[in-house]
Amino acid sequence: MTETSQIVRARLDFAYDGTEFSGWALQPGLRTVQGDLEAALARLLREETPTVVVAGRTDAGVHARAQVAHVDLSATAWSRLPGRAQRTPSEGLLAGLNGVLPPDIRVHAVAEAAPGFDARFSATERRYVYRINDGAVPADPLTRRFIVTHDRPLDVDALNAASGTLTGLRDFAAFCKRREGATTIRTLTEFSWARRDGLLEATVRADAFCHSMVRSLVGAVLPVGDGRRDLEWLAATAASDQRSPAVTVAPAHGLTLEEVVYPPDAELASRAETTRARRELT
Amino acid sequence: MTETSQIVRARLDFAYDGTEFSGWALQPGLRTVQGDLEAALARLLREETPTVVVAGRTDAGVHARAQVAHVDLSATAWSRLPGRAQRTPSEGLLAGLNGVLPPDIRVHAVAEAAPGFDARFSATERRYVYRINDGAVPADPLTRRFIVTHDRPLDVDALNAASGTLTGLRDFAAFCKRREGATTIRTLTEFSWARRDGLLEATVRADAFCHSMVRSLVGAVLPVGDGRRDLEWLAATAASDQRSPAVTVAPAHGLTLEEVVYPPDAELASRAETTRARRELT
Repeated sequence: MTETSQIVRARLDFAYDGTEFSGWALQPGLRTVQGDLEAALARLLREETPTVVVAGRTDAGVHARAQVAHVDLSATAWSRLPGRAQRTPSEGLLAGLNGVLPPDIRVHAVAEAAPGFDARFSATERRYVYRINDGAVPADPLTRRFIVTHDRPLDVDALNAASGTLTGLRDFAAFCKRREGATTIRTLTEFSWARRDGLLEATVRADAFCHSMVRSLVGAVLPVGDGRRDLEWLAATAASDQRSPAVTVAPAHGLTLEEVVYPPDAELASRAETTRARRELT
Repeated sequence: MTETSQIVRARLDFAYDGTEFSGWALQPGLRTVQGDLEAALARLLREETPTVVVAGRTDAGVHARAQVAHVDLSATAWSRLPGRAQRTPSEGLLAGLNGVLPPDIRVHAVAEAAPGFDARFSATERRYVYRINDGAVPADPLTRRFIVTHDRPLDVDALNAASGTLTGLRDFAAFCKRREGATTIRTLTEFSWARRDGLLEATVRADAFCHSMVRSLVGAVLPVGDGRRDLEWLAATAASDQRSPAVTVAPAHGLTLEEVVYPPDAELASRAETTRARRELT
């Protein structure tokens, strides 16, 4: 273990267009957000590549407008970051990262993290938005990277009736890729639909999500929204103790992580402890 | 000249992401919107490549959400377009074009044009929007293809004060690339700024625009909006009878053609005649 006194934990707030990434997590030979970010940090810090811990490990093609991560840096590297006079290490790292990162990743803020802050385990809520054009407005090539086309008209009331049956504290095994030893129990705080400028937007909030859970939830209610399935079908599907082959996982590019919520600074450490205890540590 | 009776003029309404095009107009060896559209038509019509005439000849990198064009097809080709029963030629061409065109061009509507319709010369007005993020909201990688970053804060009132001095019927030589025999007199109906969701949007409407005129107008008022120049400078610049080197043409990717306005069908032909008489025919 490293000595705490020589380590500075930095919080990074950033956004990315997921189109040309194979998701967040490092994968050999593939371009990933973690890979690009860690390479940029290594270049700026002139040290070994640090490990970046993220709040929401997005899948390939999924975007983020407000992603949060932390990275532990040596006090020596941190002190070198200003680069020039009248600049803090945080300001130096912010300018440096945006200077070396490609245009599909932009860093919004860098700060020394509050004591006890863990980007992943301190978070109390993730908010995602899924965006669909069901033909109510003309196809817009400029937004095709983050808005999915659905080839049947959707009824927003039917969508909300369906989504409303899935919220609360429950086992989401029917919407999760099975992972040995990992719980699939989550609290789905919100799953609601609204039409905005002709587009359909699903807001999905939970304490945390298992792998591809948001896209499975969206995929489960879309056939109810366009009239191909009914609420009984959805209830039977949701009750399954394993991922249902009847659910088509919605395309990745419609999904954007819009917010990660943390408790007040005084509760960061205890929140992280609670989360760690409930979930696996990998 | 072809015999009118054997020709069907089709009106195409479409949109494109200009990022990966070298503009609208055909250029040997370069990817252009006209090139892609004419190639798609040739493939669907199984005829010689037709010429597509467009309302707004956008520059490289400029986008269009509501572009309009016309194309003259032989009655024989037109009659083959349905492709299957219970489909009109227009419906067949619409489905066919969206099937063969790349995802950065989407066709919204195809229709047999009203008599006298000319996509370019019948138009009475073009409306463009220029979008800027001056740092009031975080950089969004998802919209980086159509929103320009300006590195100084902009004052919307100062922008409007500046833009307001440039509207009306006048000679826009100071904002036009000189072209032999072509007039630079235009009616600038609107040039106004508003902040929407933290972004700055300029709406620019005119009967027509000369080459890179919108981007020159935007480039001329930005230094007034961020305080580097004043209205006297702008007045002197605008009074020039040739393009001023003091004006930085604003980047192409912030500009989107949002609307082309046509008169009622009964006035299409006379409007085209008037426009042709006032401008050059090339």
